[in-house]
Amino acid sequence: MCGVAGAIGIPNAAVSVRMMMHGQQNRGERACGILSIDNTIKHHERFFGTVSDNFDDEVLTRLPGDLAIGHNRYPTAGDRTKKDLASIQPLAFRHHRQVLAIGHNGNFTNKEELEDSDLREVAWKTELDTEAFLQLIIKENANTDLIESVKTVMMKMRGSCSAVIARPRELIAVCDPYANRPLIWARKDRGFVVASESSALGAIGVLHSEMCEVEPGEIISFSANGMRKEKVNFGNTHCQHCIFEPIYFGNPHSRQRGLKIKDFRRALGAEIARQFPIEADVIVGVPDSALLHAQGYASVAKHIPLDNEIINRRHNTGRSFTQPGQAKREKVAEEKSSYDSEEIDGKSILLVDDSIVRGTTMRKIVAALRARGAKAIHVVIMAPQIIKPCHTGIDTPTEEELIASHKSVDEICLEIGADSLGFGSVEILRTVVESFDLDFENFCKACFDGSYWHDLPPGIPTQE
Amino acid sequence: MCGVAGAIGIPNAAVSVRMMMHGQQNRGERACGILSIDNTIKHHERFFGTVSDNFDDEVLTRLPGDLAIGHNRYPTAGDRTKKDLASIQPLAFRHHRQVLAIGHNGNFTNKEELEDSDLREVAWKTELDTEAFLQLIIKENANTDLIESVKTVMMKMRGSCSAVIARPRELIAVCDPYANRPLIWARKDRGFVVASESSALGAIGVLHSEMCEVEPGEIISFSANGMRKEKVNFGNTHCQHCIFEPIYFGNPHSRQRGLKIKDFRRALGAEIARQFPIEADVIVGVPDSALLHAQGYASVAKHIPLDNEIINRRHNTGRSFTQPGQAKREKVAEEKSSYDSEEIDGKSILLVDDSIVRGTTMRKIVAALRARGAKAIHVVIMAPQIIKPCHTGIDTPTEEELIASHKSVDEICLEIGADSLGFGSVEILRTVVESFDLDFENFCKACFDGSYWHDLPPGIPTQE
Amino acid sequence: MCGVAGAIGIPNAAVSVRMMMHGQQNRGERACGILSIDNTIKHHERFFGTVSDNFDDEVLTRLPGDLAIGHNRYPTAGDRTKKDLASIQPLAFRHHRQVLAIGHNGNFTNKEELEDSDLREVAWKTELDTEAFLQLIIKENANTDLIESVKTVMMKMRGSCSAVIARPRELIAVCDPYANRPLIWARKDRGFVVASESSALGAIGVLHSEMCEVEPGEIISFSANGMRKEKVNFGNTHCQHCIFEPIYFGNPHSRQRGLKIKDFRRALGAEIARQFPIEADVIVGVPDSALLHAQGYASVAKHIPLDNEIINRRHNTGRSFTQPGQAKREKVAEEKSSYDSEEIDGKSILLVDDSIVRGTTMRKIVAALRARGAKAIHVVIMAPQIIKPCHTGIDTPTEEELIASHKSVDEICLEIGADSLGFGSVEILRTVVESFDLDFENFCKACFDGSYWHDLPPGIPTQE
Amino acid sequence: MCGVAGAIGIPNAAVSVRMMMHGQQNRGERACGILSIDNTIKHHERFFGTVSDNFDDEVLTRLPGDLAIGHNRYPTAGDRTKKDLASIQPLAFRHHRQVLAIGHNGNFTNKEELEDSDLREVAWKTELDTEAFLQLIIKENANTDLIESVKTVMMKMRGSCSAVIARPRELIAVCDPYANRPLIWARKDRGFVVASESSALGAIGVLHSEMCEVEPGEIISFSANGMRKEKVNFGNTHCQHCIFEPIYFGNPHSRQRGLKIKDFRRALGAEIARQFPIEADVIVGVPDSALLHAQGYASVAKHIPLDNEIINRRHNTGRSFTQPGQAKREKVAEEKSSYDSEEIDGKSILLVDDSIVRGTTMRKIVAALRARGAKAIHVVIMAPQIIKPCHTGIDTPTEEELIASHKSVDEICLEIGADSLGFGSVEILRTVVESFDLDFENFCKACFDGSYWHDLPPGIPTQE
Repeated sequence: MCGVAGAIGIPNAAVSVRMMMHGQQNRGERACGILSIDNTIKHHERFFGTVSDNFDDEVLTRLPGDLAIGHNRYPTAGDRTKKDLASIQPLAFRHHRQVLAIGHNGNFTNKEELEDSDLREVAWKTELDTEAFLQLIIKENANTDLIESVKTVMMKMRGSCSAVIARPRELIAVCDPYANRPLIWARKDRGFVVASESSALGAIGVLHSEMCEVEPGEIISFSANGMRKEKVNFGNTHCQHCIFEPIYFGNPHSRQRGLKIKDFRRALGAEIARQFPIEADVIVGVPDSALLHAQGYASVAKHIPLDNEIINRRHNTGRSFTQPGQAKREKVAEEKSSYDSEEIDGKSILLVDDSIVRGTTMRKIVAALRARGAKAIHVVIMAPQIIKPCHTGIDTPTEEELIASHKSVDEICLEIGADSLGFGSVEILRTVVESFDLDFENFCKACFDGSYWHDLPPGIPTQE
Repeated sequence: MCGVAGAIGIPNAAVSVRMMMHGQQNRGERACGILSIDNTIKHHERFFGTVSDNFDDEVLTRLPGDLAIGHNRYPTAGDRTKKDLASIQPLAFRHHRQVLAIGHNGNFTNKEELEDSDLREVAWKTELDTEAFLQLIIKENANTDLIESVKTVMMKMRGSCSAVIARPRELIAVCDPYANRPLIWARKDRGFVVASESSALGAIGVLHSEMCEVEPGEIISFSANGMRKEKVNFGNTHCQHCIFEPIYFGNPHSRQRGLKIKDFRRALGAEIARQFPIEADVIVGVPDSALLHAQGYASVAKHIPLDNEIINRRHNTGRSFTQPGQAKREKVAEEKSSYDSEEIDGKSILLVDDSIVRGTTMRKIVAALRARGAKAIHVVIMAPQIIKPCHTGIDTPTEEELIASHKSVDEICLEIGADSLGFGSVEILRTVVESFDLDFENFCKACFDGSYWHDLPPGIPTQE
Repeated sequence: MCGVAGAIGIPNAAVSVRMMMHGQQNRGERACGILSIDNTIKHHERFFGTVSDNFDDEVLTRLPGDLAIGHNRYPTAGDRTKKDLASIQPLAFRHHRQVLAIGHNGNFTNKEELEDSDLREVAWKTELDTEAFLQLIIKENANTDLIESVKTVMMKMRGSCSAVIARPRELIAVCDPYANRPLIWARKDRGFVVASESSALGAIGVLHSEMCEVEPGEIISFSANGMRKEKVNFGNTHCQHCIFEPIYFGNPHSRQRGLKIKDFRRALGAEIARQFPIEADVIVGVPDSALLHAQGYASVAKHIPLDNEIINRRHNTGRSFTQPGQAKREKVAEEKSSYDSEEIDGKSILLVDDSIVRGTTMRKIVAALRARGAKAIHVVIMAPQIIKPCHTGIDTPTEEELIASHKSVDEICLEIGADSLGFGSVEILRTVVESFDLDFENFCKACFDGSYWHDLPPGIPTQE
Repeated sequence: MCGVAGAIGIPNAAVSVRMMMHGQQNRGERACGILSIDNTIKHHERFFGTVSDNFDDEVLTRLPGDLAIGHNRYPTAGDRTKKDLASIQPLAFRHHRQVLAIGHNGNFTNKEELEDSDLREVAWKTELDTEAFLQLIIKENANTDLIESVKTVMMKMRGSCSAVIARPRELIAVCDPYANRPLIWARKDRGFVVASESSALGAIGVLHSEMCEVEPGEIISFSANGMRKEKVNFGNTHCQHCIFEPIYFGNPHSRQRGLKIKDFRRALGAEIARQFPIEADVIVGVPDSALLHAQGYASVAKHIPLDNEIINRRHNTGRSFTQPGQAKREKVAEEKSSYDSEEIDGKSILLVDDSIVRGTTMRKIVAALRARGAKAIHVVIMAPQIIKPCHTGIDTPTEEELIASHKSVDEICLEIGADSLGFGSVEILRTVVESFDLDFENFCKACFDGSYWHDLPPGIPTQE
C-alpha cells in the first residue's frame, strides 16, 4: 500500500496535492513527501508521519509552482527498522539539467534482474524498485519524448504500478495493464489532478461524475497542451485488481474499478450473514475498518441489535496494521480502543472484523472483551484466510507471519481466545463482486490461494 | 470542562492516572499534567496537548510513587492566547515542608471576594480560582486534619467543584453539594482510584458494578487506613448536574448521575424525531458527537436510511470545540471531515448535531454538503438554543459569541445556510431525563434559560 | 553564582536585559529567565541553557514593555538533578492584583528559621530561599511602599543578596550590607539599567565612567520619578566581597568593588611568580579562566616563553565548572580542549590555573599533556586551597567534594598526576589586593579558612 | 573549505571519525555527516550544524562498524539559502550491490563538461561536483579494482581534491597533484586514520611524529591487507597549496605542507610589523583568528603593549565567516564580541586582523571601538587584498562581493571607518614562507592576483 497524487496547471499545486494526500491518508501513515516544480526548479519536502502532522502552511510555502506530485508511504519490508529520509518518495533525479521525479504505488518484482542487466552501470541511490523504473526511463529518455520512454520501460517491468511522474511542465500518470492498484484523474480548473483514490479527489472538491480512472495499461501525459494518451499491453485478457482494497485498505468514500467501497463492505457483511448465521446478544464491528461490514451483517441478522459504539477507537494513536515492527504494533493496539464495559458484561458478542493477518490485534480485543465480562465471543471474519504474502504492494511480509498459513481455523480460534471463529471464502467474494455486475476474474486473490499472476521475485521482496 | 484523576496505594500510580486521563481525553485536549508523590517527594510533569502525545514511558519513569493525581485541561477564558505552563494543573504548593496538590474540574465564582478578604496576604502564583481553594486549605490546615480543612473551606467556596487533592500518603476526592460535575471512585487492587468519568475507570479495567459516585457534598479521604467520608451541605434540596455533559461532553461509555450517556443520546434523538418529523433522503449525524443522536432519530424515522458514514471525521486534527481561538478553530474545521460526495449529490439531507455554540462549524459543514451537490439540507439540533454563558466549567465565554443569544432561529438558519433548522427544547430534555426515572430538577439548564443556581462572578469569569 | 539584570524606562526593556544577561553569561549557563511588565501585565519566559540559545527575536516579542528583569542561573545544590522550570528565576507572584517579581544573586542562610516563624502560613511554590524574601516582602507590603518593605525585610534576612525586584512602574535594586556579590547600575537614555557585572552594562554601550555600584546595604528604587535610595546596616564595619569573583568567576572586562578583574588576575599571576619561581620550557594557562593569570606569571618569569595557545578551549561544549552532576562534567572536560601536541612533546610545562575545586579537570589536563609527550608538568594554582563550602552563592557543595579539604598538597599532586604542585595563599591575595590600595578585610575568604561572617544554615545549604 | 576524515580497522570507527571531525571543526560548521560500513551494511547520519551539537552517543550507536568516513561542511555557493540534507556529504551510492561513498574537500571545475560528455546518461542525485567524481568512478569500476578506477578518474578531473572514499573493507585517500588542500594519514592501533588536518589526528591521540601527509597526486588504499599507494601526475612541476589555510582557515595546532600554522601566523605578524611600524597605545588582535598574528606583531613592536583580551569573542554564536547569507552574518557579528570599554576609552588602538573579505565584520568592530571611546583606530591586515574569487574550495563567491576587488585601500579605510589601514602583500607572504625554507612557488595565491593554475568553470562555480 501507498498513495500517489499529482497536480499540474494549478497555482500552488502542492496545496492541492497535500489535500489529496490527506484525503487518502488511509494508504499509509509512515511517511509522506511532496515535490513541486516551479518553472524548472525542484522543491522537495519529506517527512516521517502523517500529512497533517507535517505539511503545514510554512512547509507549503517552500513548495511553490503549478506542478507537484506527492506520496503517502506505508512501511515496507525494506525500511521497517530504519528511518531513512532518502527512501521517502517522490524520488527525484536530475538528467540533462532537468528534474525527473516519481511517486509510485505498487511493486516491481524484477528489479534484481534489471540490476544485473540493463542497469549494470547504475549508481543506486536507494533500494527501492521505484528507482529501477526511473533509471530505466532516464536511460531511454535520451532522444525521445517522456511518454514514449515510459511506454518502452513499462514493457520491461514486471509487477504492479500506479505512478505519477513529473518533469518541468509535464505530469504523467501510468497504470500497469493489470490495473492492480487504483489511479484516478480529473480536470480541475485549468489543469489536471491525479490521485490513488477518489476520496482524495473528493477532498479538493472534484465531484464523482468528473472523475476518470486511469485505465489498465494507460499512460497519460498532462501538460499545458492538454492530455495525450498511450497504452501498453502485456497480452493479459484479465485485470488483477487487488480485492483487499475494497475489503480493508481503500477509503470507504472511494469507488475503485466500479466498486463503491462502502457498498461492497455492507454487501459482503450481508452475504456473510446469510452464509454464517450466528446467534448473539449484540453485533459489534471492530473499528474503524469493520464498522460497515458489521452494518451489513446486522442488516440481514435483523433480530440482533448492532452496537458499533461498544468498542470506540481512540484516534491519534495510529492504525495498528500500518505500524512497522511487532513491538510497537502491540503497544498501540493496547491503547487504541475504549470499551463500554457496561454493555459487554454478561453478553454474548458477535464480533465482526475484515481480516486476520497475524492475529495479534484480535487476540487483544477478545481478551479485552472477556476482561469486561463478555459471556461468549463469536468472531466472524469477512476475508478468507490470508495464506500467502502479497508481492505487489501490501505489507504481509512473510508466510511465517501469516497466522492462517500454518494454523487451522480451530487453532486460530484457540489462539485468539474466541468461542467460535468463521472466515469468509473466495466463493463469497465472487458472489458479492458479481452482485455488482463485475467480473470476479479481474480481481487478484493471490493472498488467499497463491494464484500469483506475476513471477515471484528472488529472495525477500521489496514492496512499495 | 476539564477532567481529574487520582490513584493511591497502587504501584506506579502515575501509570494508572495516565491511562484514566486518556480514557477521559474528551474532557480537554489543551493540556495535561500529572503529579506523583513518592513517599514525601513530589514529581510533576505538565504539557500542552493530549495525554498520549506527551505521557510516554520515559516521562512516566519520572513520576514514581504509589500516589498520583492528574488533570485534563480544556482551554479556558484566562489562557486562550497564552501558553503558560504554570497554570496547567495539578497545582502544587509546599506547606510545613510537605507537598499539597490539587486537580480541579469546575469553577469557583467567588475568587475575587476571597482575594479581598480571607486571602488578602496571599502571594498568588496563578490566576486560577483553584489556587484560592488551595490557599484557603493551607490557611485552615494549621492544626487540623486535611479532610476537616477541606470541609471548612468548601463552605466558603461558591460554584462548582469536583476535585482531587493529594498530600503524602493521602488522597482526597471532593464534590460540591450541587454535584455539578461528575466524579467517580473505586477500589482497585489494594488501593483506590478516582476519576471524572466512568470511561476513565473502565480504561484501567474497573467494572461498572465496582464504580461509586462521589455523592453531592461528599469529601472522601483515601489512605492506607482505608477511606473516611465527610459531607457538606449548602442547604440545597436539588442538585445541579450539568445537562451538557450527557448531550455533548461526556464520554458515551460513561454513566453520570444515573444516566448512561449513550442511552441518553439515542433517547434524545428519538424524542426529537417524534417532535420534529422531517422528510429527507438520508439521515446523517455530525461526527463524532452526534452519531448516537442520529441513530436515535433514525430509530423513529425508520423510513429514512441512516448513513453516518457520509461525513467521516478525520482524526488527529483535534476537536473543533476544544481549540482555543477562533482562527485556529476554523482551520481545523476545514480539514476535519471527509465527505462521500457520491452519496450527497442530488440528495436531501437531514443533518443531526448535538448543539450550536457559535455556528462556525455548522456553517462549514452545510457549505461542504452544498458544494457536493446536496439538494436540500435540514438541520436538527438536539440541545435547545444556548443563550447564556456557563460559569461553572464550560467554555462558552461570552454572551456575544453565542449565536443563539442574539439571533432568531430563522436568522441562524440563514447564517449557517441550511434549508431548515430546528432546536430541541428544555421540555424535551425534561421528557427524556424523566424517561430514565430521574428528577429533571436535579439538572442545571442555566445555559439555555439563564436560571443560574449560583451568584455570578464580577467581571469576566475564569473557568476551569 | 548567578547573575541579575533589570531595566526600566527603556522601550523593549527585555531586549536590553537579554543583552546584559549575555554580557554576564559567565555567571551561569544552566538556565535563564526574563520577566517583563507591560503597563501592568506580566510576561515571563524561562529556559534551560544559555541566553543566546534561547532568547531569540521571536521570544523577545513575547516580552513587551519598558520594564524587565532577568536572571542567569548557575546550577545549585537544590536542582542539580532535576529540570524544574518553576525554580528558574525571576520568581513572580501576584499580590493585591499586581505582579511582584524578583531576581536574586546570593544566598540567604535563614530560610528554614523563617519557614517556622514569620512564614508559617505560606504555601510555598519553590524551594528557593529567594521565595522567602519575596513572601516576607508581600507580608510587609500591606500598607507601606515597596522600598520600605524591602528595607524592613532585609533586616530579617541573613546571608548574601544582590537582587532586582520589579512591580508595575518600579524597579528596585538591593545589595546586602556586606556587599558580598556585585551589583552595578547606570542611567541609560531616559531610564535606568542594573546588572551584576559592569561587562553586562558594557554590552549595551554604557561607558565605565557612567556606571555606579549599588553600595553595601543600599536599596535603590527606579521609576518614572527618578531614583530614591534607602540604606540598611547590619552593624558590620567591613564588607565581605567574594574574592573568588576576581580570581575566577567575574568577567575579565568587569570592575568589581574597585578591582579591575583583568588587572587583578595579571597581578596575582605576577605575585605568584615572584613567590614561586619555577623552571620550565614553557608557561601555559588553562583556558579560558587562567590565561590572564599565566600572562601575569610570564611577565615576571620573562625567560620562559608563554604559549597560551598550546591548549585551545573548544567552545560550544559548556564550561566544566558550571555543569551539574559529575558524570556530565567529566564528559565535557574530555572534549573541551584541543592540544598542540607538536609543542608539548619533550617539553617541561608550567601549567597555570586559577583554582582546584574537585581536581577532576586538572587530572584530565595533566593526563592529556602526558599522553602528548610532556617531559614534566608543574602546576601552579593561583588561589589557596579551597577547604570549606561557600554558603553565599558559589557551587562548592560539600566539604567532602573539595579535594583540598581532606588531602595534602602532596596527595593532590599525586592524584592529579603532576610533577609538582603549588597553591597561592591568603597572604598573597592580601598582598595583591592591597597593591590596588584596597582593604583586604573587606573581602570574604571563608572558603579558604572557614572564617564565615554569617551563621551557617542547618542541614544542606540551598544556594543561588 | 570543508573537512574530511576516515578510519578503517578500528572498532566503532565512527567514534574516531567524530572526534577527528570535532578536531577540525574550524573547517566548516554548516553541516556534518558520517557514514559507516559495518561489514557490508551502510549506516549514514547527516545534520546541519556542528559535530558536537549533533553527534552524541545515541547517534553514534546508529553508526556501527570498523570503517567510517565523515565530512565537515562549509556553506558553498550552491546551498546558501536552502537546507538540503541530501547534499550533505559523505555522498553514497550503491553499485553492484555494494556501497560506495565519498567525502571531498576541494572543488572540481569541469563538472559541466563531464555532464555533457562522459556522464550524459547519469541520473544526478545532487548538484555537487563530488557526485561527478563518484559517478565516473562507478563507470570505471566495472572490472578493475577501486584504486585503479580512482587513478583513471583523477586524470579526467580538473581542480582541487582531497578526498576519502569508502567501500566495504577498503578506505581510499586521494590528493590531487597540486596538493591544493591538506590531507594527513596515520596508523592507529591496528588500522588507519585519515583527516584534513593534523589537529584532527591529534584529537584522537596521534602524535605529530606519527603523521604522514598524503603526497601530491597520491592515492592510498587502506585495508586489512595494509596499504597500497598509486600516484597520478598532471605534469605540473609545482604544487598549489592554498596560502589562505595558514593565514586564516587552518587550525593553529596543525602543520600543513611543512608549515606549522601557529608559527606561520606569528612570523607573518612579525614581518608585517617590520614592514609597517605603526604607533598606538595598544595592540589588539581580532579574536580568534588574528590573536597569533597580533602576538607576532607585538613581538617586534615591543614598546606597545599587547592586549588580546580587549575584545573577547563570545562563543556558541558561530563564526561570522562560515555563516551563510549576509543578514545572518551581520546579526551574529553584533553579538559575537564583548569589549573591555574601560581599556578602550581614550586609547589609540592598533587592530590586527588576518584578512578582509567583504569588510562587514571589520566595520562593526571599528564602530564598536569608537562607541567605547577609542581615540584612533589603525587597522593592519595580514593578507594582501583579496581581489579574485577562489574556485577551489573557499567561500569567496563573487568578485562583486570582495570589497578589495573594486575599492582602493583608502576607500576601504573610509568604509570600515578606520583612521588608517594597511594590507600585507604577496611579497611579504613570500618572505615569510621562505623563512621556513619552503618554496613559495608551491603555494596558490590566485585570490590575491588572479593567477589561477586551473581552467575557470563556466558560469557560477559550485564549490566544496
